[in-house]
Amino acid sequence: MAVGRVYLVGAGPGDPDLLTVKALRLIEAAETVVYDRLVGERILGLVPRHAERIFVGKAPRRHTLSQEEINALLVRLGLAGRRVLRLKGGDPYVFGRGSEEALAVAAHGIPFEIVPGVTAACGCGAYAGIPLTHRGLATGVRFVTGHCREDAELSLNWASLADPDTTLVFYMALLNLAEIRSRLVAAGLPADTPAAVVSRGTSADQIACLGTLGDLPERVAALAPPAPCLTIIGRVVSLAPQLAWAPEPAAGFSRAVRHG
Amino acid sequence: MAVGRVYLVGAGPGDPDLLTVKALRLIEAAETVVYDRLVGERILGLVPRHAERIFVGKAPRRHTLSQEEINALLVRLGLAGRRVLRLKGGDPYVFGRGSEEALAVAAHGIPFEIVPGVTAACGCGAYAGIPLTHRGLATGVRFVTGHCREDAELSLNWASLADPDTTLVFYMALLNLAEIRSRLVAAGLPADTPAAVVSRGTSADQIACLGTLGDLPERVAALAPPAPCLTIIGRVVSLAPQLAWAPEPAAGFSRAVRHG
Repeated sequence: MAVGRVYLVGAGPGDPDLLTVKALRLIEAAETVVYDRLVGERILGLVPRHAERIFVGKAPRRHTLSQEEINALLVRLGLAGRRVLRLKGGDPYVFGRGSEEALAVAAHGIPFEIVPGVTAACGCGAYAGIPLTHRGLATGVRFVTGHCREDAELSLNWASLADPDTTLVFYMALLNLAEIRSRLVAAGLPADTPAAVVSRGTSADQIACLGTLGDLPERVAALAPPAPCLTIIGRVVSLAPQLAWAPEPAAGFSRAVRHG
Repeated sequence: MAVGRVYLVGAGPGDPDLLTVKALRLIEAAETVVYDRLVGERILGLVPRHAERIFVGKAPRRHTLSQEEINALLVRLGLAGRRVLRLKGGDPYVFGRGSEEALAVAAHGIPFEIVPGVTAACGCGAYAGIPLTHRGLATGVRFVTGHCREDAELSLNWASLADPDTTLVFYMALLNLAEIRSRLVAAGLPADTPAAVVSRGTSADQIACLGTLGDLPERVAALAPPAPCLTIIGRVVSLAPQLAWAPEPAAGFSRAVRHG
């Protein structure tokens, strides 16, 4: 029997324009698509009508299939000779547990490919006017996950995280935003450090909530922005007002006269 | 006079397949392209023949134009009504100084757009079989720059970096690899921590040099891999042998029988 092939593909942060060329090509030729909650409607709309779509859920604290079941599903489909498009939000190797899926597939000798994507930090940062690094403001950037299993406390090295020279990006942190604030402030990061939550980043209904480490939880609670949300903490957030931009409304406007 | 528009576009890590859909569309329609050394020949080959190409250099310790001159060039072109494609390797807001260019353009009222790209860490990691995070091996990932101005010492918080639970990715670190090793080991990161240098990652001639923090500088010196190189340090590197993969050689092989 023919062995299939599993494509572990990052769908990027949301805007279909940010799909990679390879991801788009694989989506348009897909036979079987296994996708989760972070892949938006506009990208799913690019999947051919005749393709089989398998939703595997995975929201924080609400799993449709467990990770082990997802791994087993990919193995079963691959061994059955299917060409499987495993579509994941963002980049498959950044908090996507894509490497666990790849290990499962590899252990069964099923050929696979990894297609990296624009990770949420880059996408949301660009669209919200927040560079991840900037000379004089941040010498580096750090991605951490702000959600934990069950109701356990976040287990992070707060002393190391409380570094004013490094931009912090928390993936999936909304539920724990108040704890993140108190831990970082206790570890010495100034409460007036600029901070933002970007909701549905890069989509047409993106909301960026700008504030400081000290007041962000209350600002966000008042706004109640829809998921997915990304939290960015660091001096680079102060550039957001200057670096805001909007795409051209339509191609016809491309030569619009702005000055006399 | 019409004011132009500046597109600050990430070209991704090298493989043209990893361009975003938007980047490819802008490249194919480009009138004026300002690019630097990290944008490869295969991507430049997609620029229309009639487009004006302006090379602005920028290698570590060898600059064709200074950053201030690049900023001024973009402003001049934008004020002259040009649609400028500013093409940068990787993602424009990760160590690309793209935000300095955007600030310069914004300060002159020139409309601009940011097109995020697949950053080198994600691209090189995926193609070298190295996830940036993995349950039980790395709870987060950190991007730092391993090159410094002139012959200054690297000024990084080594105590904070020497965290075995965080994957470290050094951009542009090859010249300082021995110093990075000695600093990290002195700060407590075990010398047997897996580590890799990925040369020309995602390109057809990618080389991944695998070793440990302790022996990587000598391994790399023996191999003398061509630039650009990315250094990844952390337990996730141990997965590289299991997670190696190769693209399908050609579409005709897509249903090749592998098992009896």
